[in-house]
Amino acid sequence: MIRRLSVVGLGLLGGSVAKAARAGRLAQEIVGVGRSATSLEPALRQGAVDRITTSLDEGLAGADMVVLATPVATLERQLPEVWRAAEAQALITDVGSTKSGIVRAAEALAGRRPLEFVGSHPMAGSNLAGFAVSRVDLFQGATIILTPTDRTSPDAIKRVTGFWETLGGRVTVMDPATHDRAVAAISHLPHFVVDALVAAVVDMDPRFLDVAARGFKDTTRIAASDPVVWREIFQQNRAALGEALGVFRRALASLERVLDSNDNAAIETALERIRKTRADLG
Amino acid sequence: MIRRLSVVGLGLLGGSVAKAARAGRLAQEIVGVGRSATSLEPALRQGAVDRITTSLDEGLAGADMVVLATPVATLERQLPEVWRAAEAQALITDVGSTKSGIVRAAEALAGRRPLEFVGSHPMAGSNLAGFAVSRVDLFQGATIILTPTDRTSPDAIKRVTGFWETLGGRVTVMDPATHDRAVAAISHLPHFVVDALVAAVVDMDPRFLDVAARGFKDTTRIAASDPVVWREIFQQNRAALGEALGVFRRALASLERVLDSNDNAAIETALERIRKTRADLG
Repeated sequence: MIRRLSVVGLGLLGGSVAKAARAGRLAQEIVGVGRSATSLEPALRQGAVDRITTSLDEGLAGADMVVLATPVATLERQLPEVWRAAEAQALITDVGSTKSGIVRAAEALAGRRPLEFVGSHPMAGSNLAGFAVSRVDLFQGATIILTPTDRTSPDAIKRVTGFWETLGGRVTVMDPATHDRAVAAISHLPHFVVDALVAAVVDMDPRFLDVAARGFKDTTRIAASDPVVWREIFQQNRAALGEALGVFRRALASLERVLDSNDNAAIETALERIRKTRADLG
Repeated sequence: MIRRLSVVGLGLLGGSVAKAARAGRLAQEIVGVGRSATSLEPALRQGAVDRITTSLDEGLAGADMVVLATPVATLERQLPEVWRAAEAQALITDVGSTKSGIVRAAEALAGRRPLEFVGSHPMAGSNLAGFAVSRVDLFQGATIILTPTDRTSPDAIKRVTGFWETLGGRVTVMDPATHDRAVAAISHLPHFVVDALVAAVVDMDPRFLDVAARGFKDTTRIAASDPVVWREIFQQNRAALGEALGVFRRALASLERVLDSNDNAAIETALERIRKTRADLG
């Protein structure tokens, strides 16, 4: 049982952590920390948190569990202040969608003041942002990637695993660099490619969008996402995204070569391999 | 009122035409034509058609309305035989997803024997194929693109429009070449790109698929489509797909350049333009 859970940033993910922790009676007290009282008030009114504050010092005082849920570019910047404000016994995790940077920053800070930190990335979300779209069941069945290193204590991994599992998540573990390559492949690359796809249709003729059917809408749903959130993600994970874009360009050229071979069996073999890969995902 | 409706090919689209025409009491009699009696029997058993035959001559005899719903590569090959078998008063349409080839072929045939033909493309479908997945409501609210030319009679356009509207579709008109560019942009290009996306993730590391979340699954759903159907579509519309792929590659390179400018405002402006375009689609 957590005595005091502090959630820094009450957007989609932070808000959902607070709501799910409240519903699961995971903490005796939940404190919401954010930049402006106005943006925090809905969470207080709806009972997702017991207290709100715009002061990190005040918000982290007495907390034995801290979840950092600010935007990915803010996270790293904020970390030194978090490190100063947190209690010695606090267990700290985050929900950032890139992990190498934050884990590196946390380990540098831990060299001077040893606090327990485990990087987390809940693979749950929405193309919408903000507390208004947060949900008590956001983590139900969602994959949560933890990115401990050989410097992370087994006890901290165990406690953070338990935390996410109680919220309904399924925890899996990767090192930070592998995590960043994996999410570049299955999240950031698709996002970037689909953004270019929407731009390309506009470039060809915006009126073509008038006949877009369900397939196009499903494929491009993630393009309707918050520009600031995704600018930061693309920038934070630029190296791994670059690698993924290279692999994608080669895959696209290769598929085009197979098509131009006019070898029907070869084309169908290539498409069938792709079909099966996707169908197996469910 | 149609006296005899012949549907050639009882897969997803042909089966859905038969079911919807039956439910809407659009025709006194519905005849299903296909390659094998076995594949036609479910439609007869379920009452979607009154008669089945593997003979085009038999199937088209006495039909005043003919819907060609065989795969896109078969359509064009089959057209001369359709032209021989059809009654003089028959109105012929199809459901093929590329239109320049079939319309050209139909107009060539009409030069020798004047039959009424209007190309149709219902923007409805599924990644699954076959009569088993056909649905009475497949065309409800779906966009149906008609591709008449200046040689098509206004009366034929009016009757085919009425046909699809009775089945629940919303009819829009384009010339065949514009149609092929439009579907290359909003259907064939996304399909091809998403195929390459799935292939790229496998190329990077197939285990990355284990952490794929809803965004990836939605984006790549269309990659789980029938390899033969899509081989034929890509081949049939190769020229327009090639143009669309060129525009897409330039859009991708342009987005990457904006990202590498590290001009946050410029990146957000580009992403916001894309977000709004997609969000406006609903």
